[in-house]
Amino acid sequence: MNGAESLVHTLIKCGIKICFANPGTSEMHFVAALDRIPGLRCIPGLQENVVTGMADGYGRVLRKPAATLLHCGPGLANGLANLHNAKKARVPMVNVVGDQATYHAQYEPPLASDTESLARAVSHWVKVSKQSDNVGADGAAAVAAACSGAGQIATLILPSDSSWNDGGVVAEPVTAMPQDVINSAEIDASVKALSGTKVLLLLGAEGLLSAAQAQAARIVAHTGCSVMAESINGFQARGAGRMALERVPYNADMAIAALKEFTHIVLVGARNPVGFFAYPGKPSFHAPADVSLTTLCVPGQDAATALAMLADALHAPKSAPLEKTQRPAIPKGIPSSLGFGQMLAAVMPEDSLVVDESISFGPQFFSGSAGAPPHDWMMVTGGAIGYGMPCATGAAVAGAGRRVINPQADGSAMYTIQSLWTQAREKLPVTTVILNNHKYQILIGEYAGVGANPGPTAMNMLDLGNPDIDFVRLANSMGVEAGRATTLEGCADLMVASFKKDGPFLIDLHI
Amino acid sequence: MNGAESLVHTLIKCGIKICFANPGTSEMHFVAALDRIPGLRCIPGLQENVVTGMADGYGRVLRKPAATLLHCGPGLANGLANLHNAKKARVPMVNVVGDQATYHAQYEPPLASDTESLARAVSHWVKVSKQSDNVGADGAAAVAAACSGAGQIATLILPSDSSWNDGGVVAEPVTAMPQDVINSAEIDASVKALSGTKVLLLLGAEGLLSAAQAQAARIVAHTGCSVMAESINGFQARGAGRMALERVPYNADMAIAALKEFTHIVLVGARNPVGFFAYPGKPSFHAPADVSLTTLCVPGQDAATALAMLADALHAPKSAPLEKTQRPAIPKGIPSSLGFGQMLAAVMPEDSLVVDESISFGPQFFSGSAGAPPHDWMMVTGGAIGYGMPCATGAAVAGAGRRVINPQADGSAMYTIQSLWTQAREKLPVTTVILNNHKYQILIGEYAGVGANPGPTAMNMLDLGNPDIDFVRLANSMGVEAGRATTLEGCADLMVASFKKDGPFLIDLHI
Repeated sequence: MNGAESLVHTLIKCGIKICFANPGTSEMHFVAALDRIPGLRCIPGLQENVVTGMADGYGRVLRKPAATLLHCGPGLANGLANLHNAKKARVPMVNVVGDQATYHAQYEPPLASDTESLARAVSHWVKVSKQSDNVGADGAAAVAAACSGAGQIATLILPSDSSWNDGGVVAEPVTAMPQDVINSAEIDASVKALSGTKVLLLLGAEGLLSAAQAQAARIVAHTGCSVMAESINGFQARGAGRMALERVPYNADMAIAALKEFTHIVLVGARNPVGFFAYPGKPSFHAPADVSLTTLCVPGQDAATALAMLADALHAPKSAPLEKTQRPAIPKGIPSSLGFGQMLAAVMPEDSLVVDESISFGPQFFSGSAGAPPHDWMMVTGGAIGYGMPCATGAAVAGAGRRVINPQADGSAMYTIQSLWTQAREKLPVTTVILNNHKYQILIGEYAGVGANPGPTAMNMLDLGNPDIDFVRLANSMGVEAGRATTLEGCADLMVASFKKDGPFLIDLHI
Repeated sequence: MNGAESLVHTLIKCGIKICFANPGTSEMHFVAALDRIPGLRCIPGLQENVVTGMADGYGRVLRKPAATLLHCGPGLANGLANLHNAKKARVPMVNVVGDQATYHAQYEPPLASDTESLARAVSHWVKVSKQSDNVGADGAAAVAAACSGAGQIATLILPSDSSWNDGGVVAEPVTAMPQDVINSAEIDASVKALSGTKVLLLLGAEGLLSAAQAQAARIVAHTGCSVMAESINGFQARGAGRMALERVPYNADMAIAALKEFTHIVLVGARNPVGFFAYPGKPSFHAPADVSLTTLCVPGQDAATALAMLADALHAPKSAPLEKTQRPAIPKGIPSSLGFGQMLAAVMPEDSLVVDESISFGPQFFSGSAGAPPHDWMMVTGGAIGYGMPCATGAAVAGAGRRVINPQADGSAMYTIQSLWTQAREKLPVTTVILNNHKYQILIGEYAGVGANPGPTAMNMLDLGNPDIDFVRLANSMGVEAGRATTLEGCADLMVASFKKDGPFLIDLHI
């Protein structure tokens, strides 16, 4: 048995079901092992950032790692941006990255590069597997690392001779690091914080899953504290049976205004409220400087249990009311952010997976979509654009029939538009809505913050017209059916029609 | 004057004319400075690997650096693969990469990442410019670094507060490091090597420019030595008035066979002949193990002068015959590698720039295109696929009207297909020929080397059909005219028609 074969057997033993892949020459023995050993479904992407983004979407939905197969050096580099997003979303993932044979790198062949440094920039765990007899054990360790904590990026670098040499040994699964248990000190500190009057319960990570929200609702109903979700979240349960949560705004001024009343913040899997970027004369920390911060639990801990213990300690009733399905009517006319949210709530199938890369158009999607049936919502957690379409693709693989809706900014769409081909090939139930304003609108807004309107040189870099991108033809070129809409009701009609199809559909919505 | 403004003024003073760009929020003050200060033409790309690839093409043609403007962390990451190619092609380039404000990074905002480590993986020179009063001087140093040696990748990381803070100082140009002069020891050693009987003059880098080839031809004619070009080259002058050079084959077995007769190799800007990848049981070094290697000059040195000194030392006549234009007839029928080369020679305009990312279909393009008029030929020097279309785009910007012909493998095309939009926007004279075999043919060949035919799992990762990509619609969707051909004469007709257009054209050639 060669090293590659031992790795495939080990990954299957460790519960890996899917390998998102774009291999190259240095991975050919691993490809051959995948070919010979049944048990891993291989799904190709046309570029590596599609591959890593698919594994992100898959991991977010199932909270289990997929494997990726990436080519050495620049192949990995192409996939780094979505690995960055996955890392910030605390997604479990196992990357298998080929590399030059151990003895060949010294000759500095053209494709040699510092694969290990590139991997370290986006991984929690990195190992170069230099001998075929260790490859299986390293694979099992990679899966355990991926499943540790809140979810980690584990990258196994596999020189091609470690793949092809004999001596591979299949390894048994390794137990992942256990989560830290919730202890009474955090409960006591949170009880004390919640005795104040201007208290915010700030939910992030596991605090946004359905079971945790049911417990958080008890605390909010009992204490009258405020509650919000972090600004940008990897996976948030929403709609009927969940809390009607608003997010801390992305915009710095709006975030500062939203947080200024609070004297205490209890963090439930959430990070400190800091700005996405710094701006001249504005603080990096968006809560009042003298706010008191209490951490109930961190990502990776069991937020539902922590919140239940806290609610019990507060003597809150055992249940509290949650959101009910009250679908709004389908709105009409020119698309607005609020109207688009309402339209989503009006038409989305129950248990939809929404992969939101709306960027500038999205701020009122949450308020608009109140009354929606239960669904889950994903965002571009690390801020690296180009996450939406691959994440939607991987989420659809994980969703096993759940409809994926991807509200997708046009500029960001063009980063990883190749995802459509995989959607067509795998006949995945993804409805993409291109929010097409023909520009990088978010940056035009940011430019205004610099103090002036963009002149011709700046607009040349911020405008996506001249030529306008025809997203209908673009989708068709990769085998995806598509239509165009200019009104909310037109978009709703196309969405409803798309939900009846087995495969993907793209709507070019002019906003 | 803020730091960003001092940088724009400095870059202009240092001779930078073009900035290929895809900015984000952290670069907005630099965008504003570009907007206010005339003198840098800004050309946007829809994804960063398009941006860096365009700068690669521009630098190869003009041997002068363009600037790029890239977003922090993942933005740079998206552009790394084509920076890798540019580094291996020894292209001068100045990257301006934004980053989080110096005081903001400590808060670990979502988009924070290790921009500096990512930059180091592909750059010869990296500097984080932490204070606005140094930004100008750092910019001048970056341009000097880019212009040193054979051409270098210089990356200036610009935290956003270094951009927006006052105190910027415009810097004067800095002299680049001078090239090492050729000294008599290398000439003497090469004379001695050429006294042998089985000697190969191996040309690379500056040894492949027109003036160098004229001198190399004197040596070949006088001594009867053999001459070849390196396997993969950044920029090679070809056609009438140049040497009819074959390249060392990419395929390991063929390379070993081609080099086995030689007892001496004289390296003229070329690297040792090593394999692109290692294979089980095959040597990494493709020349005979006991071959004698003599370095006449290294990249960055003046190869034309070195060869002239060597030719004079050998008492070679002052000139030797070079290739003449003898265009073949346009071949007919099903496309073959040889036939495509002949077709190119038959139709290409004089002084064309050929950007070759043909991958598996290209091995006989050189032998086929003998008799072509003078032209220049570029290849995917670092082996990171997705270089062709961006490089063609940047080459067209540099070419100032020269026709660019981009024979482009379909799989690699889909890495950076967004380049078409910039070609359309800038109305660039690029004729793209998609060599469409609906598969990753090179990998199917590599798989055969593993010892078997690909099974269904492997073919699922190596096949690009199901659905077939419709490159005509894809081009149209981004504003590029396109047509389809299935024969060499059909392709020739479309090529000739495209040469009469001002802007880009794409041919989907089914091979």
